[in-house]
Amino acid sequence: MRQWTLCDHAAGVWVETVDLGPAELGMPDCRITKRRLRGGLSDGVDLVQVTCGELSVAILPTRGMGLWRGSYRGLDLGWQAPVHGPVHPSHVVTGERGGLGWLRGFDEWVVRCGLDNNGAPGPDTVLDNNGNPITVQLDLHGRIANTPAHYVSVTADPAQEVLQVTGHVAESALFHPLLELQTTISVTPGSSRITIADTVINRQVVPAELELLYHCNFGPPFLAEGSRVAVPYHAMAPRDKRAAEGLGGDPDTASVRATTSLAPTAGYIEQCYFFRPAALPEDGASLAALIAPDLSRAAVVRFDCRQLPCLTLWKNTAATEQGYVIGIEPATNYPNTRAVERAAGRVVNLEPGARHGAQVMLEVALGEEQVAGVAAEIGQIHDTASKTTHVQPHADFGPT
Amino acid sequence: MRQWTLCDHAAGVWVETVDLGPAELGMPDCRITKRRLRGGLSDGVDLVQVTCGELSVAILPTRGMGLWRGSYRGLDLGWQAPVHGPVHPSHVVTGERGGLGWLRGFDEWVVRCGLDNNGAPGPDTVLDNNGNPITVQLDLHGRIANTPAHYVSVTADPAQEVLQVTGHVAESALFHPLLELQTTISVTPGSSRITIADTVINRQVVPAELELLYHCNFGPPFLAEGSRVAVPYHAMAPRDKRAAEGLGGDPDTASVRATTSLAPTAGYIEQCYFFRPAALPEDGASLAALIAPDLSRAAVVRFDCRQLPCLTLWKNTAATEQGYVIGIEPATNYPNTRAVERAAGRVVNLEPGARHGAQVMLEVALGEEQVAGVAAEIGQIHDTASKTTHVQPHADFGPT
Amino acid sequence: MRQWTLCDHAAGVWVETVDLGPAELGMPDCRITKRRLRGGLSDGVDLVQVTCGELSVAILPTRGMGLWRGSYRGLDLGWQAPVHGPVHPSHVVTGERGGLGWLRGFDEWVVRCGLDNNGAPGPDTVLDNNGNPITVQLDLHGRIANTPAHYVSVTADPAQEVLQVTGHVAESALFHPLLELQTTISVTPGSSRITIADTVINRQVVPAELELLYHCNFGPPFLAEGSRVAVPYHAMAPRDKRAAEGLGGDPDTASVRATTSLAPTAGYIEQCYFFRPAALPEDGASLAALIAPDLSRAAVVRFDCRQLPCLTLWKNTAATEQGYVIGIEPATNYPNTRAVERAAGRVVNLEPGARHGAQVMLEVALGEEQVAGVAAEIGQIHDTASKTTHVQPHADFGPT
Repeated sequence: MRQWTLCDHAAGVWVETVDLGPAELGMPDCRITKRRLRGGLSDGVDLVQVTCGELSVAILPTRGMGLWRGSYRGLDLGWQAPVHGPVHPSHVVTGERGGLGWLRGFDEWVVRCGLDNNGAPGPDTVLDNNGNPITVQLDLHGRIANTPAHYVSVTADPAQEVLQVTGHVAESALFHPLLELQTTISVTPGSSRITIADTVINRQVVPAELELLYHCNFGPPFLAEGSRVAVPYHAMAPRDKRAAEGLGGDPDTASVRATTSLAPTAGYIEQCYFFRPAALPEDGASLAALIAPDLSRAAVVRFDCRQLPCLTLWKNTAATEQGYVIGIEPATNYPNTRAVERAAGRVVNLEPGARHGAQVMLEVALGEEQVAGVAAEIGQIHDTASKTTHVQPHADFGPT
Repeated sequence: MRQWTLCDHAAGVWVETVDLGPAELGMPDCRITKRRLRGGLSDGVDLVQVTCGELSVAILPTRGMGLWRGSYRGLDLGWQAPVHGPVHPSHVVTGERGGLGWLRGFDEWVVRCGLDNNGAPGPDTVLDNNGNPITVQLDLHGRIANTPAHYVSVTADPAQEVLQVTGHVAESALFHPLLELQTTISVTPGSSRITIADTVINRQVVPAELELLYHCNFGPPFLAEGSRVAVPYHAMAPRDKRAAEGLGGDPDTASVRATTSLAPTAGYIEQCYFFRPAALPEDGASLAALIAPDLSRAAVVRFDCRQLPCLTLWKNTAATEQGYVIGIEPATNYPNTRAVERAAGRVVNLEPGARHGAQVMLEVALGEEQVAGVAAEIGQIHDTASKTTHVQPHADFGPT
Repeated sequence: MRQWTLCDHAAGVWVETVDLGPAELGMPDCRITKRRLRGGLSDGVDLVQVTCGELSVAILPTRGMGLWRGSYRGLDLGWQAPVHGPVHPSHVVTGERGGLGWLRGFDEWVVRCGLDNNGAPGPDTVLDNNGNPITVQLDLHGRIANTPAHYVSVTADPAQEVLQVTGHVAESALFHPLLELQTTISVTPGSSRITIADTVINRQVVPAELELLYHCNFGPPFLAEGSRVAVPYHAMAPRDKRAAEGLGGDPDTASVRATTSLAPTAGYIEQCYFFRPAALPEDGASLAALIAPDLSRAAVVRFDCRQLPCLTLWKNTAATEQGYVIGIEPATNYPNTRAVERAAGRVVNLEPGARHGAQVMLEVALGEEQVAGVAAEIGQIHDTASKTTHVQPHADFGPT
């Protein structure tokens, strides 16, 4: 196994440019490069590009180890956001526009939301430096995507046939929780699978709250008119009235309507659906897939319901220029305000030193046979699930 | 024609340092340099310096293609701000100090205000990600001056005798308008004229609002006790009580008082006057000039009333240390809050793909003959204008 | 005397890396290095490291010339904050979390708070650009620690046996006070003393308010269970109920309780005590010391009561991971909100061009003899002082 440290803040290590080819990595058809972007809103953003056969992924240490873009066999993973990114955190003030400032930096394929909070902006109560409760405004999707990693390394293991990028990112301040994300992102030659293996550690000596969400975003060529999101579920509900509009009121057809995509639609307003995803009995492994209408390809998101028991489907099938996109978002909770999620018992409480693990795998299924296999796998789980479909917002998922 | 690309974010091009002399440009007495500033509040700011005979201008790609400073025949254009700039956008949080945070980065000669809003801070209603109206706080003068260009190139055309710097700057985010500014700044050997040819494009598929203002600021040696701003107008009014104080109540003398400058005056509070500028019949071309008291020189701002139908005169003849300055500000609207301007019908509505062009020319008139020529040109237009002078704030211009 | 300019914004000078050894400095056992940190939250932070025999100190031009860390004879000065710093100002939005955003960048040994305000967040009234009073939210500890120096130089004077680092930092904006901090930080071979000689100048032509506080923070090995802070005082009071809790209600024992440290205590909420420190009659020189429980070592902070008439003792003996730390904070005022301090007459009013000097010296006493000497020096002053001990918050120090 060979390892290269690209950044180790504690040790004073940082490397501006790296280019590791097959010879250095000891793996044919593999390459890892690291460079610093310059100019525009990306100035100062570090980008690690991993190529492994026909799969490639661009990782952003400067933006909390998010996955900026990917491609597999020439198919774009990710989406086209209306932002010239990746955006350096210095241009993002999360409190702007009523707490929606996060959106100014949002163009990643896979971006984590959290760690302190991951949902809608809104007031919550925290303790100030004097130990007194104060009401503060939490901002959309939290801070982790705008926090640079303090440790980044890459590993090549020719024997195990795996390339890995590891990063550590800490959210902290005096009188604030200290949550550290440790992620290892792995790829293997010949596979389309990208494995994100994360651990969040409460590095403090007092309990901390954790909210973690994986905002996995897909546009064309997986998303098109008639694309379907397959997700096995015990229960689902629309987030709000706008989402309920999309269901038509009939429980028998609601889930098909919820999971079927429109063509790019100018002025479309986002619709979100909350799912309690299902897994096989005595197993937490679950998955969801965005299946192209001709069944020729699917983007698959695998996760574990024991780690990430909530799933949000974000439909934003607006015009191409507006960011035609669907998000499959496994998470510890629903992205309501933290106050709502706490009241519902969905905020993770981490004891001092405790860890919360989360593994998310991204895959591409190509050809009717592979796509049918994914659909069958989802169908098999779904058959065992309770499948309660709410056509109006429901108290089990958030405000009604 | 020769062209050099200094930054092209989409293509991954960025050049740290450029030095193009007469040989490269193919034009004698011309030079274009580009460098990145380091240290203090300027750290990371890119600066393009164009020298063309006795004229020079410094352009800031990092600050929305603003014109930082200029000089002509040894005369300083611009002003001395109480800021050690140019200031990198990462040090500017526009929401600070009740929405006045923009001022912390303000030291340019010519800075655009806009594109989403260009005026006073204040609440306005926008749609959030759920399509619901929310009240947000808009900040003074908007975002464009703190947004880096994603494309910058320079062109030398010896045959046409013109040097040009082109830049593209985009304001965008998901669920936000996408307004792109494309500017070309041109100079010609032997002339004092700098031409700013701008186009703002609505890159979205839904209509967008645009507010655009050119904050052209002049200090000594054009500004002194007794300097006059000549501007041909159909109507004018003071912005507020403070500005009305400066008019003395007599309509016959008000405009002279409004447009005549004090010496540097410690503790002076700014006075703003709103003008509806005039042009010759069936022509939109207008101009305003700051004329030195001895008539030896004038700074001229040319614009087109069809593109920029509003003009604000900003008098801030405070002490030298406070920024002794006058601003001549042609704009699409008056810099009131956007809510006020919308209600007055002065916010530009751009249909999807639509463009709004604006051309501003900056010139220097030297010697009594040239100055008299400028004064005559303005006088000729003014003679044809209706010249309504309000001595109190008037509903045609903003809140009263 | 030899001098090197590391940054001179006005002159366009900035040096990325410097390494001056004994030969260059002309002083044995001395070295000054300057480098730019890369990666994580520190990306872009300039750090000047001064080594002088067994003493070393790291200075942060990018963070307002704060002293990040120090060491003497292998003993760590400073503390271990729960932040991976030093933190670039672009990651600090002081208005976050109800005005506590400053904490996200806080990990220095000695950090200045000010210059416009240095205390608790809260509303205050300032004049806007129109000269109208507006209520703005002032944020915790002000801006100076997140403002980069625009001038930095180092000096070696072998004849006088002194190494100096000089920095200038300006807080300014249009319609805002222009306060310039000029600091010279000096060390001498063979001594543990670091002298911080500061001048704050009102560079404006109108009067300005100044609040200045030196947040001098110490953890192990000076801080431990039973460590005592010796401070000679005329009067003291707890800041609030939480601090009063620590005093037990008996004036005879209250000061011992206020100044004695706990072991690291998970979940401990900070306790602050306000002192009016004493000096010898007709002399302003005073000092405070954090004395280790075995009397083997002490960290000493010397200051002048005529310059800095207020002293705050900040006890934050929380767990090591939470930042086990005590702050000795000589200041122009107590770190209440500026509105409170103004009403109490403790905000410095600087006339145009006026200067406020402040000299703070940091020393280490090693061995029982030196420690006893420091204790005796403090005791001698304390004996002459009035020693009024309030066991509840008192109106002489802030809100009650």
